[in-house]
Amino acid sequence: MLRTMAAMGIGTSLAACGSSSAAPGAPPAPPAPPPGGMPSPRPGDWPGSVGAGKSVVILGGGIAGMTAALEMTRLGYSCTILEATPMAGGRNKTIRAGDSIVETDSSQTCNFDLNNELYFNAGPARIPHHHEFLLGYCREFGVALETFTNENRAALMQSTGSMGGQPVIARRVEADTRGHVARLLATAINQNALDAELTAADKANILEMLRRFGDLDGSFNYAGSGRAGFPGQENTGSRQRDEQVNPLALQDLINETFWQQRQGFTDGLNQQSTMLQAVGGMDRIARAFEAEVASDLVTDAEVTEIRKTTGGVRIVYDRLGTPTQLDADFCVCTIPATVLRNIANDFSAAHQSEIANFNYSAAGKIAFQSRRFWEQDHNIYGGISWTTQDITQIWYPNSGFGQDNGILVGAYIFGGSAGTNFANLSPAQRISTAIAQGRNLHPEMNGEAARGISIAWSKIPFQLGAWGTSSPLTLLTPDENIVFAGEHLSILQGWQEGAILSAYYAIDLIVQQT
Amino acid sequence: MLRTMAAMGIGTSLAACGSSSAAPGAPPAPPAPPPGGMPSPRPGDWPGSVGAGKSVVILGGGIAGMTAALEMTRLGYSCTILEATPMAGGRNKTIRAGDSIVETDSSQTCNFDLNNELYFNAGPARIPHHHEFLLGYCREFGVALETFTNENRAALMQSTGSMGGQPVIARRVEADTRGHVARLLATAINQNALDAELTAADKANILEMLRRFGDLDGSFNYAGSGRAGFPGQENTGSRQRDEQVNPLALQDLINETFWQQRQGFTDGLNQQSTMLQAVGGMDRIARAFEAEVASDLVTDAEVTEIRKTTGGVRIVYDRLGTPTQLDADFCVCTIPATVLRNIANDFSAAHQSEIANFNYSAAGKIAFQSRRFWEQDHNIYGGISWTTQDITQIWYPNSGFGQDNGILVGAYIFGGSAGTNFANLSPAQRISTAIAQGRNLHPEMNGEAARGISIAWSKIPFQLGAWGTSSPLTLLTPDENIVFAGEHLSILQGWQEGAILSAYYAIDLIVQQT
Repeated sequence: MLRTMAAMGIGTSLAACGSSSAAPGAPPAPPAPPPGGMPSPRPGDWPGSVGAGKSVVILGGGIAGMTAALEMTRLGYSCTILEATPMAGGRNKTIRAGDSIVETDSSQTCNFDLNNELYFNAGPARIPHHHEFLLGYCREFGVALETFTNENRAALMQSTGSMGGQPVIARRVEADTRGHVARLLATAINQNALDAELTAADKANILEMLRRFGDLDGSFNYAGSGRAGFPGQENTGSRQRDEQVNPLALQDLINETFWQQRQGFTDGLNQQSTMLQAVGGMDRIARAFEAEVASDLVTDAEVTEIRKTTGGVRIVYDRLGTPTQLDADFCVCTIPATVLRNIANDFSAAHQSEIANFNYSAAGKIAFQSRRFWEQDHNIYGGISWTTQDITQIWYPNSGFGQDNGILVGAYIFGGSAGTNFANLSPAQRISTAIAQGRNLHPEMNGEAARGISIAWSKIPFQLGAWGTSSPLTLLTPDENIVFAGEHLSILQGWQEGAILSAYYAIDLIVQQT
Repeated sequence: MLRTMAAMGIGTSLAACGSSSAAPGAPPAPPAPPPGGMPSPRPGDWPGSVGAGKSVVILGGGIAGMTAALEMTRLGYSCTILEATPMAGGRNKTIRAGDSIVETDSSQTCNFDLNNELYFNAGPARIPHHHEFLLGYCREFGVALETFTNENRAALMQSTGSMGGQPVIARRVEADTRGHVARLLATAINQNALDAELTAADKANILEMLRRFGDLDGSFNYAGSGRAGFPGQENTGSRQRDEQVNPLALQDLINETFWQQRQGFTDGLNQQSTMLQAVGGMDRIARAFEAEVASDLVTDAEVTEIRKTTGGVRIVYDRLGTPTQLDADFCVCTIPATVLRNIANDFSAAHQSEIANFNYSAAGKIAFQSRRFWEQDHNIYGGISWTTQDITQIWYPNSGFGQDNGILVGAYIFGGSAGTNFANLSPAQRISTAIAQGRNLHPEMNGEAARGISIAWSKIPFQLGAWGTSSPLTLLTPDENIVFAGEHLSILQGWQEGAILSAYYAIDLIVQQT
């Protein structure tokens, strides 16, 4: 128990927030206390036929539930997945022409054109290269992957309170920040301010490194850099390739928290290059898992009761109006806490309390079909622009380059009050809001961004939230023959890899009891 | 004339070196003097039918020559391209199963398996997102593009003289360099060493920025960062995700020029994200250009004489043993200076002198077919590893992720003595050398990297070099009715975009004379 709890890294989310990092304004999480080399469970750890003759009911057919079914079947357990909706995948959801997004108080139909590249990953949309288990399943199942660009130096940064509210091309912020930092440190070194810790040789070496780091001149001054680009670079065929832009002032880069906070996002371990995406939409992964566990999957099965029996569990679920009872030796419950708290159950008071109080992000997104003006007029091929406005981010498609049209994610709001505000808007209001804000970065959005479709995860039935944000404790312990799983219980909250790690953890708890 | 010369930015290569940057050891080029906003020529600048009734002979069917033919045909000129080899494209060359690489003293046949992803871009292999003309032609011709990863934090850096010669994962170098730089600057600021230029408010702001920039702790110390990854991250399913690695010492990062020099490579304007590649091989671009100019193209036509006539030019060429004479009003000569200097001609003494003395890089590459051990065992999806050994770089494929096999570029040598040494090896010696060096980064190469095929551009007939490295001057001026083009005459030496810009420049010179 101690071993697996330590391995789960209780309360030490390395990079919470689904396919994103901490919301703007939130400081980075403190580093996790090292768990002392405690191993975390994974396939290969368990005896080959440990589950023979034992049954498991898995609640929820998302990535966690399907991983549990897949691996436990391999161990000999007899598995049944109860999935409340008509399709497995959970929050791994890709929207294409004709698909619906049904929220608790609205319904939308996607009217994109029918085209392989015109899809909207409403849930997870990127995969870090070291999410080895998820990537291993992609390899095993033959899911094609391609590069996802997190950091595009041609993308924009826009703060309403700085630079007159004008968007600035990311390469200028990057180059000038490095230039100023390098220049200031070189100044201090040359004034002998750091002689207490730097030898003469160190000083010479670090000055040379700083010159390259910041693109300083021979006197260790920073007077701008070709790294920041040239004027007119957003017009096809710039006539000014040889000209240098003036550097942004240090004060402009640090006077407002927005510019501070953009430092380091793509340096985070879960946001570093190379990032990946599934070719044709993230749900290719859900479909591949689904194909593996199809024989164990019961869809349209809404769980209404979770009961303990002597040495086992009893689940009552409603399938298209018909109540059904299912007994099993074990239960893996991956239902989000937001949903689980409203299902009749026999959980211990401690488990019920943690479920009742578990917090979730109210993240949301909106997508538009548009001419690829970002490629044709601004040389933006994939990546993300940032703004201090509620829409937070604009995502450009990372594939289908050169096609006439693409899907622009016009807002990706991680949660917080902006997320709640977004959820409280009607679908039509979300469209007008996203265009009103987006055109401060891209005037073309006013007129060219069309067919908007949005998702507020806090209003999606059977999810009621985007990802868990509380630190789990009791839910990492079994409640008799019931164990819990889901991204919210992992050290990678909000990531598909977290869902998988949580499934391995749950399997380990059951194997220990088998 | 002055206008176009200024626009070409004589002697101010922003980022020489083909699909690469300056060779290790070479300092970055000084910033270019601003040309004062002088416009550079491009399509749209010239009267629509200016060339009606005029003929142009274009020497060389590479990107420069084909661009000239394409755009001059649109202006009404009657164009003929003389290409010495059986196929247009020049250095835009992709090698697949069955293709040959013939050098002046050797011949190799590629024995990769036949597979869409098993290709080797022997010449250009990446496209910066702001190379707008090349990308515009890709859009116009329907050449599909995908993301090319230049900076992969999972790739390796290896210096024979540092860290015991052991490769270090790039994310550690990146994170720890930023951490040390931020820590040192914070120390200086907190010691009031920079009070002469920073106000109290500036200091508070920059300290907060540095905390994020370097991932410093609350006391502005750097004790390592989750950005550097975790131990065992190269083993599928690390059990140590929660553990932090010890930071590299500042002295280890700066004591050797290799680590200094890796700072900033992917910050260079021509190496910044997003970089692109043609889906299926860079020669998709050459084939698309070729299809556009097919009716003007004469292949296997080796130029033997370039003569001036009254008001025109006369070219003598040998086509499969048959000498032929072609008269035209104008000539656009894109033949590399290394080749041109050995062709009989009537050029002025000044032009001849510059041609005779023009320097070229002796760049070379080698490619292997291999199991994708870099993906399967090390989470490396595309990107580049660096080493101080002669092989300089190892490139991983940026597509076909998850397939069993891929093409590993086992060396990319930009030139210099390492390039000359490489060229002087036999193909078999290049293979054994690349594996002997490559296994210091990837032991798997010894045994798994097979079917090696190499190219030394200095030994490729009709090229005799990878890209021009001299600063052109006289060659930017017409020699009567002959004008010159090619990447070597552009501000983007070694880049396909440079070849295109040089073609526009040459067209402009002819239009002025027409």
